[in-house]
Amino acid sequence: MELGDPLGLHRVVPEPRASETDPLPLPQRATRLDNDTDKCFESEIVVDVATLNIDAASFRQMEEAAGGDPDGVGRLVKETVEKRGKQHNPVTGSGGMLLGKVKRVGDAVRDRSNVGDRIATLASLSLTPLRVTRVVAVRAASAQVDIEGTAVIFASAPFAKMPNNMNERLVLAILDVAGAAPQVARLVKPGHTVLVLGAGGKSGILCCAEARRKLGKSGRILAIESHPPYARELNSLGICDMVVEADARDVVAVRDRIAELTQGEGVDLTFSCVNTPGCEMGAILATKDRGKVYFFAMSTSVTACALGAEGVGADVDLLIGNGFAEGHAEHTLALVREDNRLRSLFERRYT
Amino acid sequence: MELGDPLGLHRVVPEPRASETDPLPLPQRATRLDNDTDKCFESEIVVDVATLNIDAASFRQMEEAAGGDPDGVGRLVKETVEKRGKQHNPVTGSGGMLLGKVKRVGDAVRDRSNVGDRIATLASLSLTPLRVTRVVAVRAASAQVDIEGTAVIFASAPFAKMPNNMNERLVLAILDVAGAAPQVARLVKPGHTVLVLGAGGKSGILCCAEARRKLGKSGRILAIESHPPYARELNSLGICDMVVEADARDVVAVRDRIAELTQGEGVDLTFSCVNTPGCEMGAILATKDRGKVYFFAMSTSVTACALGAEGVGADVDLLIGNGFAEGHAEHTLALVREDNRLRSLFERRYT
Repeated sequence: MELGDPLGLHRVVPEPRASETDPLPLPQRATRLDNDTDKCFESEIVVDVATLNIDAASFRQMEEAAGGDPDGVGRLVKETVEKRGKQHNPVTGSGGMLLGKVKRVGDAVRDRSNVGDRIATLASLSLTPLRVTRVVAVRAASAQVDIEGTAVIFASAPFAKMPNNMNERLVLAILDVAGAAPQVARLVKPGHTVLVLGAGGKSGILCCAEARRKLGKSGRILAIESHPPYARELNSLGICDMVVEADARDVVAVRDRIAELTQGEGVDLTFSCVNTPGCEMGAILATKDRGKVYFFAMSTSVTACALGAEGVGADVDLLIGNGFAEGHAEHTLALVREDNRLRSLFERRYT
Repeated sequence: MELGDPLGLHRVVPEPRASETDPLPLPQRATRLDNDTDKCFESEIVVDVATLNIDAASFRQMEEAAGGDPDGVGRLVKETVEKRGKQHNPVTGSGGMLLGKVKRVGDAVRDRSNVGDRIATLASLSLTPLRVTRVVAVRAASAQVDIEGTAVIFASAPFAKMPNNMNERLVLAILDVAGAAPQVARLVKPGHTVLVLGAGGKSGILCCAEARRKLGKSGRILAIESHPPYARELNSLGICDMVVEADARDVVAVRDRIAELTQGEGVDLTFSCVNTPGCEMGAILATKDRGKVYFFAMSTSVTACALGAEGVGADVDLLIGNGFAEGHAEHTLALVREDNRLRSLFERRYT
């Protein structure tokens, strides 16, 4: 049996190329992946899929494209997977993750998993070979799609074994944004003033909760959330010093409100979790010189950040959210498990 | 006389909006700016423009769109400015900077400049109100376009007074990428192994030179450059430990070559200065866990970075190049002035 490449190059379907020397793309950049799991590779794990957890920006786009009809989202998922061999939204460029049961473990990766394990992928669906036989149900509230189908996990792709003591859908919803809290833990120092944009959404709440854990009674957490019920729910957790109900895309309003709340100083750290374009400058203008702005949203534009900061002379560090951090799954599951109010909010909202 | 907003909101031409409460975009995001300098504002500086220094990605795109004809670039610039009131390339989203002579200084910004000063803007052209009366000449080698016209500098927009002891075109070419070297100086520590992608271009060379200044005799600088003459010229400066002639978009080749050169460890820091899409994963795969990858190119994709790093379990920090850093103009001009070989290479290539 063939070993297969650890990055999954053996599943990339070559496209007509301009020249022979044009390099083969990695699975994430490939237009199409070979999703035929009758072909076996020693470095692969094959999974029977139960649920797709769609990336928030992608789900939102498909919902809009389907005129708000959840079944339409199921249809669009099936279409994309038939065309591309993966749930890689061609408009947003993003994917999500999946939940399933291990069906086959290649000889070269025996120590990674056992047949029958319930697992969740932590690599994006945009690089995961997938075949969808049937769409079972679409749940808009949690951006999840239940399906029947199979998927492939490459040797370099991270995944997590599902814990037994937590609701499965809750775990999946948490793991989807597992990268956020560990990055917050690395950056927040006691005494910091921290701003979270889109603070009432899934990753936003995790950022606030982790920031509070690192700050203890020191520092301040300022939160901006446009959706009133989300703002109220975040407020009720009691972890933020101030929850402002505002649209993060209103750059001037964000700038002026944060200036007012920090006596013109700006915040030390801003985490942007807003899944719509146009929030870059609000985040940048709210942050003091030599502060850091961390963008978790896929809708973030590099040019808007780079040219925007330059254009207003903002000397801040601009970071792209990395969905992976060593031990991030365990880290984030523990964060939610330890906080009863946070856990029950997530259970209510995402299960 | 009206003061005008420090960010230039008063020059944004409102577009038809979906709702009354939709916020006004900042000048960088605006479709069109009011470039009428007969209107006076106290916070503005008005400049007689001599030369536009077009962003590399933008110039390349316009050159291709014009079928390689330099005069076509001039035509496209004029078209864009007529439509948008600014040289904001609608395809790449990027701009550049300009050189000119101060024509009028608003009362509120008297201390920023004097009439007659020769200055270069450090804010992007994508947010600078501009009117082009005539295109005088296009110089493809330096991505510059000489014009007759006027521009507006907002109160928050950085600019630099031109030094007297250096060639003007050289200064402009350096200032265009003035943000690179100061960011390198902040991140490189003695002993680091540093990788620069697109190392033979303008910002790439500055990254290598600054890294060498910080490393002294310690550490290593590995450089990747696809254009053979650029690779040779970089090599001749004697600041890199290894200049590899390769295409940074060939992710697998970059991964394998750097693994070989670092005994599988990867580098501490990678600076990507390649102005074409598809280099994100090469940079990420070449970097060791907890290392940093700094993306200077406008062609960088947030989703390619975030999902790509996640998909291969790469625990690296991902930074977006900020074109501004406190004192960056002076910093980078000094770097070139102090190194005779670097200075003459830049003079040869960009003047």
